[in-house]
Amino acid sequence: MKELNKQSIEDIALGAALLGTGGGGDPYVGKLMALQAVENYGPVKVVDVESIPDDALIVLTAMMGAPTVLVEKIANGGEFKRAFEAMEKYLGKKIYATMPIEAGGVNSMIPLAVAAQMGIPIVDGDGMGRAFPELQMVTYHLHGITSGPMVVTDEKGNVSILETINNKWSENIARAMTVAQGGSVMICIYPMTGKQVKDCAIRDIMSYSEKIGASIRESTKKDIPPIKQLLDEIDGYELFKGKIVDVLRETKSGFNFGTVKLEGIEKYKEKNCEVNFQNENLVAKINQEVIATTPDLICMVDTDNISPITTDALKYGRRVVVIGLKCNDMWRTEKGLETVGPKYFHYDIDYVPIEKRIKEASNV
Amino acid sequence: MKELNKQSIEDIALGAALLGTGGGGDPYVGKLMALQAVENYGPVKVVDVESIPDDALIVLTAMMGAPTVLVEKIANGGEFKRAFEAMEKYLGKKIYATMPIEAGGVNSMIPLAVAAQMGIPIVDGDGMGRAFPELQMVTYHLHGITSGPMVVTDEKGNVSILETINNKWSENIARAMTVAQGGSVMICIYPMTGKQVKDCAIRDIMSYSEKIGASIRESTKKDIPPIKQLLDEIDGYELFKGKIVDVLRETKSGFNFGTVKLEGIEKYKEKNCEVNFQNENLVAKINQEVIATTPDLICMVDTDNISPITTDALKYGRRVVVIGLKCNDMWRTEKGLETVGPKYFHYDIDYVPIEKRIKEASNV
Repeated sequence: MKELNKQSIEDIALGAALLGTGGGGDPYVGKLMALQAVENYGPVKVVDVESIPDDALIVLTAMMGAPTVLVEKIANGGEFKRAFEAMEKYLGKKIYATMPIEAGGVNSMIPLAVAAQMGIPIVDGDGMGRAFPELQMVTYHLHGITSGPMVVTDEKGNVSILETINNKWSENIARAMTVAQGGSVMICIYPMTGKQVKDCAIRDIMSYSEKIGASIRESTKKDIPPIKQLLDEIDGYELFKGKIVDVLRETKSGFNFGTVKLEGIEKYKEKNCEVNFQNENLVAKINQEVIATTPDLICMVDTDNISPITTDALKYGRRVVVIGLKCNDMWRTEKGLETVGPKYFHYDIDYVPIEKRIKEASNV
Repeated sequence: MKELNKQSIEDIALGAALLGTGGGGDPYVGKLMALQAVENYGPVKVVDVESIPDDALIVLTAMMGAPTVLVEKIANGGEFKRAFEAMEKYLGKKIYATMPIEAGGVNSMIPLAVAAQMGIPIVDGDGMGRAFPELQMVTYHLHGITSGPMVVTDEKGNVSILETINNKWSENIARAMTVAQGGSVMICIYPMTGKQVKDCAIRDIMSYSEKIGASIRESTKKDIPPIKQLLDEIDGYELFKGKIVDVLRETKSGFNFGTVKLEGIEKYKEKNCEVNFQNENLVAKINQEVIATTPDLICMVDTDNISPITTDALKYGRRVVVIGLKCNDMWRTEKGLETVGPKYFHYDIDYVPIEKRIKEASNV
């Protein structure tokens, strides 16, 4: 068990924003929520997956909705108090700890704020090892764990409990509620025993995010180029370097959909790159040739300070490096690819592991 | 207490279809559901509002959604079993009886089917004295009773419990769920004590529906013109008689919206009539002059057999009589008109009681 200080929270926010592959909402808003909660309620204890008692009740806490909305519709703190009361009353059991559903801006920070507020530990794990846009896109789903009972709350005080026939129905129903409730809601989901968490959680996401964040923060202090340090740290691939020349964006059905177009600079001059996203970056192409797809990670960082750029911060003229990163092996299974592969998102593209695409690509 | 026979159910379906003012769904589908449930589970007992124990738990049961959808998406019978289990577990109390939320095709029959299936009585009352399209449009709402906990179920097996901050939020959230769940859901709503039901239910809706239904059924056997018999029975006004020349219809946001246009026949020749609806008929105009508005009842019946016509059965060429009927006095209060008056439905029309409009009208 370790206690998180403010520097740790800053670093986790920074590192998770990279793993969030463009989604997960503005890490700055999330960070403020977490820091404020720690200020108000005291430090947060982090526990390893392996140290959770087998029969303890663990719940994931997160924001659901279009990340662009949260910037203007801030949580008021009562959401999770009400959600926990509803969940504990419904299950007749106390919640032992919370855990992030994903790595990404707001959704890496919300469980920290919840842990501080509710006086419970946070588990050092998650269900994606990155960020994805839908509720069933978690390793728990691959292991047959149900998302319900799931609690949906909002800043107004509405509380709903969902018990659905499968996790995709939780996504469909809760997404419709999200839109009706103003574009974002807070959720308390996938109640699990400690044993179940041990069976299928992705380990150490917070420690890993913190390490990445610290590396980004320290990167300008060394002689090695920052981007090289980062790629070494995360074992990643530089896919492209360019200037944003177009951003197409649409908030639809509770998601941010869009495409960003880049013109190459330096050694990528004369080339162009296009990245498609649904909250998260899903497909990257160079000169119209696919170079990386979901579930592998496609991240963008600023060329100067290598700070991660979320899809809602994409702007004309900004210079970015596009980075590729291998996903967790659980996503490369048949059920994993059915759940989060390019075809699920309606792209007519076969999944090819990023390391193989890079080796075969003509454009990198 | 009385037991309903098949004839009673047929008559209630017929009479409630008239009071449903065009909404409430196809009475034929509802009637089949009720008759089948009685066939399977035995007869239904009806209890008066005054005879309910003060501390008994009463819940309203209904279909929510666009009536046109239900014709193709029949309930499978498991919906209310699951809804009752969820409600009773959540409240820790057995349900004593069910009650209709409104008078209208399907929603007059569903509580009968539920009562038969669950082996409980049905209360001879409702919350509208007619049909309305939204959940907060009940006399309970006028008396400050909350719709939650409300259970939403579907034929697939999804179950949700909603506790909202007010009844309009129940409507908004459940309506979004309705659309996500295929256009119609089954609901179990406004759990009340017997005392609360006595305080604000509209009495005797089923007895009244049955009386109207029997009158319609018998109407061709007497010497008096059927429409005159019906108008005498319900103390109603004949507003127009005409042929349907146009039906505009749209299923949107979980509702059926539309307008029907009529060309006058017999003494209404040279005149035209237009009726606007949102599930239920809301505004009637003759030669563009408003002759009746919600919350007063605007009903249409076939010219030949005076059987009520729901909005989903409106067809070019059909000959109909448009009938007006005074609403319950609770709807004529300030809060009543705020909740269901023409302005709530975005019509720029002041409410004037139908009897006053008739007296002043130039076109009737």
